[in-house]
Amino acid sequence: MIVLGLDPGYAIVGYGAIETNRGRHKMACYGAITTPAGMEMSRRLLEISRDMRTLLEQIQPAAVAVEELFFNTNITTGIQVAQARGVILAACAERGLEPVSYTPSQVKQGVVGYGKAEKKQVMEMTRQILGLKAVPKPDDAADALAIALCHANAAGSLLRLR
Amino acid sequence: MIVLGLDPGYAIVGYGAIETNRGRHKMACYGAITTPAGMEMSRRLLEISRDMRTLLEQIQPAAVAVEELFFNTNITTGIQVAQARGVILAACAERGLEPVSYTPSQVKQGVVGYGKAEKKQVMEMTRQILGLKAVPKPDDAADALAIALCHANAAGSLLRLR
Repeated sequence: MIVLGLDPGYAIVGYGAIETNRGRHKMACYGAITTPAGMEMSRRLLEISRDMRTLLEQIQPAAVAVEELFFNTNITTGIQVAQARGVILAACAERGLEPVSYTPSQVKQGVVGYGKAEKKQVMEMTRQILGLKAVPKPDDAADALAIALCHANAAGSLLRLR
Repeated sequence: MIVLGLDPGYAIVGYGAIETNRGRHKMACYGAITTPAGMEMSRRLLEISRDMRTLLEQIQPAAVAVEELFFNTNITTGIQVAQARGVILAACAERGLEPVSYTPSQVKQGVVGYGKAEKKQVMEMTRQILGLKAVPKPDDAADALAIALCHANAAGSLLRLR
């Protein structure tokens, strides 16, 4: 079964798909949807919507996991990321998928086994579990693979937020 | 020319369209897109996306104005409203429309002439300008009409936020 992880953003949406079978995970593909900085925001959201549809059509995931937002300092950026996240969720629903949300600390817990793990540890563990030679680039794609792994490992044991 | 105002939300999206001609404004239609509380969030966003497309097809606006978000107390609700707003903006872009954003105080300034006006004053002024017998219900639709009026009155004089 293919699990797709998504790291939402308006400039860059990281995606990473894994094939999971009886507790064994294999990397299927990863990458990023990007939109140009100079483009008007509603157009960027439309681009994300269209690219998400194409991606879901290509990957045909059985499950989708999306990182939950948390606002740290910049509320304007946070609103814009949330807008992009809305477009991503709607694209999933359009294909009959019900995306599951995970907070960053749930992803850390799910992949490293420790909710306060460093970002680097999560990336390194993701690399090891998937048997990759190097940590995937960009970071957003590596994050997305970690989110997919988290969901695959969770198997209903983690708290699901929607 | 038809100007459509939108008051974003995930449970209720207020809409209000006015026909504006040489500084005179007439109410064209108003109402609300709603989604059921029990429905899973990505499904609600998909519903909003589909209903927005239908609405834009029916109303055929020449311009769209959307209220800018501001976060007061509840950040979780704010994120969810922003997600709905993203879906709304993408639906506008899909029709080649470039939605213009106005903050609540810009709407007050544009309709009442005073950025700190009470909500009631804005609604009453909207009613008067459009020559309506009563303030439209629900409040979200009345707000949306005020946003449309603000844009029609602004005519480029207000600061445009995107």
